[in-house]
Amino acid sequence: MTYLIDGLQYSNWSERIFRQLRAGGVDAVHVTLVYHENFRETVAVVERWNRWFERWPELIFQAFTADDLALAKATGRTAIFFGAQNPSCIEDDIGLVQVLHRLGLRFMQLSYNNQSLLASGCYEAEDTGLTRMGREVVTEMNRVGMVVDMSHSGERSTLAAVEHSARPIAVTHANPASWHPARRNKSDAVISALAETGGMLGFSLYPHHLNGGSACELSDYCTMIARTAERFGTEFLGIGTDLCQDQPDSVVEWMRTGRWTKSVDFGEGSKDAPGFPAMPNWFRDARDFGNLRGGLRSVGFSDAEVAAMLGGNWARFFAASFGPEMRGEVERAAE
Amino acid sequence: MTYLIDGLQYSNWSERIFRQLRAGGVDAVHVTLVYHENFRETVAVVERWNRWFERWPELIFQAFTADDLALAKATGRTAIFFGAQNPSCIEDDIGLVQVLHRLGLRFMQLSYNNQSLLASGCYEAEDTGLTRMGREVVTEMNRVGMVVDMSHSGERSTLAAVEHSARPIAVTHANPASWHPARRNKSDAVISALAETGGMLGFSLYPHHLNGGSACELSDYCTMIARTAERFGTEFLGIGTDLCQDQPDSVVEWMRTGRWTKSVDFGEGSKDAPGFPAMPNWFRDARDFGNLRGGLRSVGFSDAEVAAMLGGNWARFFAASFGPEMRGEVERAAE
Repeated sequence: MTYLIDGLQYSNWSERIFRQLRAGGVDAVHVTLVYHENFRETVAVVERWNRWFERWPELIFQAFTADDLALAKATGRTAIFFGAQNPSCIEDDIGLVQVLHRLGLRFMQLSYNNQSLLASGCYEAEDTGLTRMGREVVTEMNRVGMVVDMSHSGERSTLAAVEHSARPIAVTHANPASWHPARRNKSDAVISALAETGGMLGFSLYPHHLNGGSACELSDYCTMIARTAERFGTEFLGIGTDLCQDQPDSVVEWMRTGRWTKSVDFGEGSKDAPGFPAMPNWFRDARDFGNLRGGLRSVGFSDAEVAAMLGGNWARFFAASFGPEMRGEVERAAE
Repeated sequence: MTYLIDGLQYSNWSERIFRQLRAGGVDAVHVTLVYHENFRETVAVVERWNRWFERWPELIFQAFTADDLALAKATGRTAIFFGAQNPSCIEDDIGLVQVLHRLGLRFMQLSYNNQSLLASGCYEAEDTGLTRMGREVVTEMNRVGMVVDMSHSGERSTLAAVEHSARPIAVTHANPASWHPARRNKSDAVISALAETGGMLGFSLYPHHLNGGSACELSDYCTMIARTAERFGTEFLGIGTDLCQDQPDSVVEWMRTGRWTKSVDFGEGSKDAPGFPAMPNWFRDARDFGNLRGGLRSVGFSDAEVAAMLGGNWARFFAASFGPEMRGEVERAAE
C-alpha cells in the first residue's frame, strides 16, 4: 500500500482545506493542536476537532493507530493524528502524558524555541539538554506511545533526546542547516543521529526554512533532499510541510510569543516582515504534492524511493511508534 | 458466561480493597471518580487511577466496553468502569462529554442532591425536570455511549430523563421508597419507568437506604428484592453496593457539601451521626457477595435469576449502553 502522509500542518482548518487534502490524495496528516496552550485549553482544541470530525465524517476522522492509515485509504478519507508543538499541554504533570495520549496526542515537542520544563529551544543561548522532568517525560512518552518531536529544540537537547529515548524520535518539520543555515534547521550531527536510530526527518516547506525563502525553486529543494539521501539514506526521510494555510498573522504572533513575553519577538520573521511568509508557488496547498513527486523524480529518485519519502517511511514509523502502547491495551489486543 | 458486577462503589482504593474484589470474584465495578470536582480535578483522578492500573495490572484494568467483561474473566482481574456522581466534571461545556467518554467515563449522574446545570437533585424543594442544557447533554451522552444515572436526582427530573433519553437509563444505587422511605430511594413510578424502558435499578447497600439502617437483616433486604421482582420483573435489576470502604468522614462531608455551601449539610446523616454509617454485618466488603447470593436463593430466586441480578443484567445493559459509540468508531469497527 502506498500512502501520502504529511508529517506536520497547522492550518486554519475549514471544509475547503479538508477538501484540498482529499483532492491532493493525502491519506494522513499530523496536525498541530497547540503551542503554548495549557491542558484545559488543549482539551478545548480537541473539542473543536471533535466537532469537525462529526461534521465532515466523509472527509476526515481522528486516527489513533497506524492501522488507521489503511482505514483512510479504504474509506477515501484523511486520517488526522494530533500533536503539540510545546509541552505546555502537560503543564507540570507527567500524568497528563497518558491522558493526552488517550485523547489521541501522538506527537509532542519537548520545547518550542524557548526553554521548557523538559528541554531547551533552538533560540536559547544556553542549552540544558534534557531536564530532570524531561528525562521522566521521555520515558513516559516511550511507554504510552507518543513520539518525541524535536523540531524546535536546541542541538544539545535534541541529541540528548535521541540518546535518552528508548524509541526512535522525530524532527517532523525542518531542513538541513548545511543547505539553509536557519536556527530551526538541523545540523549534520542531528540528521545523522536520526538516521542511525530509526528516527525521522520531515522536510519542511515553510519558507523561513528554505534556501531563498518563498522564492526557493522546486529543483533546489529536491536537490537538497537528494543530497541528504545520498549522505544519510532515504529510509528516515519524509515530508512535514508546516503548512499554515489561511492563518491570520495574530497566530504566528501567538506561536512566537505565547504568554512568555510582553514584547514582540519576530522569531524567524523580522520587523519588516512579521507575518506568515508566502508559500513557494509550487507548493501552495495539499493539491501540490504532485509537483513534489515530479520534482523528486526529476532529481533521480526511483518511484519506490519517492513513495517511501512521501508516506511509506512515515507509515512505518507510525506503526513502530504509536502501538503497542500501555500494558493493559497490549493485553486487550492479545485477547 | 456468568458475571459478578457491582453497579457502584466509591471506596478509598488500595491494594487491600483490590484484593478483596478478586477474593470476592467481582468481575467488574462501576467506580465513582468524582462528585463536585471540575474537569481538571476529574482528570487528576483519572491520572490517579492510571497509576493504580500500572501498579496492579494483575488485579485491575480500565474497562471501556462490555467486551472487557470477558477479558476480566479470562485474565482473572476486575474491570474498572469510570463514573461521575454529578455533572460538575463537564462544567458548562457539552464538548467535555465526548472527551470524558474517550477517557473512559461510562456513567454520569445529571445531578447530585442539588440543582445542577442539567437537572434537579432529590433534596431540592423545586424540581425543574431537565434544563435546556440537560436535554442537550442527554442527547450527547446517548450519542457517545455514556449512561445517564439518576440515583441522586429528583423524581420529576428522573422521569424526564427516562422520557428524553433515546437509550435506557440507570439508577445505579438506590432502593424502593415503598420499602424504606428515604429521599434517595425511588418511587414505584420511577422503578416502573426503568423496568418498562430497559433501564436498570441497582439495589443499594448503603445503610441510609436500608430499612433499619446498619441493622437491616439480610432476609429483609432480599425479601425487598423479591417483592420488587414480583411487581416489576427481574430483567432490570442489579446490585450497586455503594460501598465506601475506608473513606474518612471528610469525604462524606465533601460529597454532601462540596463547594456549594459554607454551612454543614448532613444529607442522609444527622448532627449526632454525621459520618459514614457502618455497613450491615452481612455485607462489609466485596468478599460478602456470597452472603447476598445465599440470601437471594433463600427467598426463592432460581440460580439463573440470582446470576442475572448479580451481574448478567448489568452485562446486558453495558453491552447496549457503551457501544457502538461515535460514527468514526462504528466505521472503524466495521472495517
